[in-house]
Amino acid sequence: VHLSFTSTETSTDGVVQREFTLGELTGALWMPASAEQEGRPVPLVLLGHGGGTHRTSPAMTGRARLLVTGAGIAAASLDAPGHGGRPVDTVQGEAMAALWRAREAGEPEGPVVVPFNAHIARHAVPEWRRALDALLALPGIGGPVGYFGLNMGTAIGIPLLEAEPRIAAAVLGQFWCEESLAAAARRITVPLEYVLQWDDEHIDRAEGLALFDAFGAAEKTLHANAGRHKELPRFEAASAVRFFARHLLGARH
Amino acid sequence: VHLSFTSTETSTDGVVQREFTLGELTGALWMPASAEQEGRPVPLVLLGHGGGTHRTSPAMTGRARLLVTGAGIAAASLDAPGHGGRPVDTVQGEAMAALWRAREAGEPEGPVVVPFNAHIARHAVPEWRRALDALLALPGIGGPVGYFGLNMGTAIGIPLLEAEPRIAAAVLGQFWCEESLAAAARRITVPLEYVLQWDDEHIDRAEGLALFDAFGAAEKTLHANAGRHKELPRFEAASAVRFFARHLLGARH
Repeated sequence: VHLSFTSTETSTDGVVQREFTLGELTGALWMPASAEQEGRPVPLVLLGHGGGTHRTSPAMTGRARLLVTGAGIAAASLDAPGHGGRPVDTVQGEAMAALWRAREAGEPEGPVVVPFNAHIARHAVPEWRRALDALLALPGIGGPVGYFGLNMGTAIGIPLLEAEPRIAAAVLGQFWCEESLAAAARRITVPLEYVLQWDDEHIDRAEGLALFDAFGAAEKTLHANAGRHKELPRFEAASAVRFFARHLLGARH
Repeated sequence: VHLSFTSTETSTDGVVQREFTLGELTGALWMPASAEQEGRPVPLVLLGHGGGTHRTSPAMTGRARLLVTGAGIAAASLDAPGHGGRPVDTVQGEAMAALWRAREAGEPEGPVVVPFNAHIARHAVPEWRRALDALLALPGIGGPVGYFGLNMGTAIGIPLLEAEPRIAAAVLGQFWCEESLAAAARRITVPLEYVLQWDDEHIDRAEGLALFDAFGAAEKTLHANAGRHKELPRFEAASAVRFFARHLLGARH
């Protein structure tokens, strides 16, 4: 199975955005136009989207474009199982119904989201590893590799980082401290930037801090901003780009 | 009493460093060489040093130079009472002796440092306000004004921010959550970036987080880094400069 590009779009600021398929997988790739032309491979950041969104959601496109224009780093996203037009299985269908019921009843979302996202992650982790094989074989893409994903992107990112030794740095955040996730986090030692919202109405503050605390990385930074779950400030995306520049470009940033 | 410059040094990258006196006060001022020449006033950040250091310690000089070269913002530091050659009063002398005894005995430093720094702050706050009057009267210095101080710089900064309405943004961090400081913090509403060390051997983690939590600012960000008290990463200084650029230059950064 090979990676096939289904569309290519070049913006005036030198960002080439392509959509691709890889068997049943669907994703997007953003590269500096110069990387291919000059035959000088650039590092890559994998972008894991949040629950209910998809490969080219505004957050994915915004972060990808910042990585390319701000640091000359390529970015790739992948639709998670059941997202971006991919088929929804029975477990996911039931979980989504349960999530709606919890929201309407004003009940906590964590008890539904945590096992739901663990189910998605079990499928998403081998998919990401397969996609990484294909992406690293492309001209213009070198290494090292980073991973950037919040919310469901963190539920997928933690087991992915545990399984995948080619990922050298990560930006994660905004998730519950479920025991098996915390256990996996303890085995993750790559440099980490972690975001959470200080006044998150879904994720208890102590639980969010406990998941950050669990990570085994000697070099880890927490960015906690005042505000509710969806109010993560825009400047955290620029901070993540600087973090990846520092760790993936091997120069002083 | 007027501000008098006692030395001027211009570096090749366009930073003018001057030392000054203002009555019994001693301080330093860093400005972009272009600010005076072009008659275009620049914002100012007040730099409060930590305990046992002084106006031109490496941390002060490093932060000042980053502000000037990275954002075109002027910076000024002031020797705290009993620091940088200023006379040490009886209370300070006794507190320093008590601090040495606590260190040698392996006892916690907080119970000595907190009241010691509160004593210094009572004198330092009116001194900073007097210095700010003089600094804002200089050609090339406009506004708005920020404040950047960690450790003792935060013990001084919190009552200074409470007293001084001309300060529009602050970077603080690394202090104990003493009750009167926390009460003052609750009345501070300017945007805040706050740093602490996740594995601080002197300041209990919960206490450090509680002081951040106390601030009344709607816009506040915590940067917590893995590591001990003295291991604050260098990149936090660059982050502080971007924070001040965002809030004092009034442009998108």
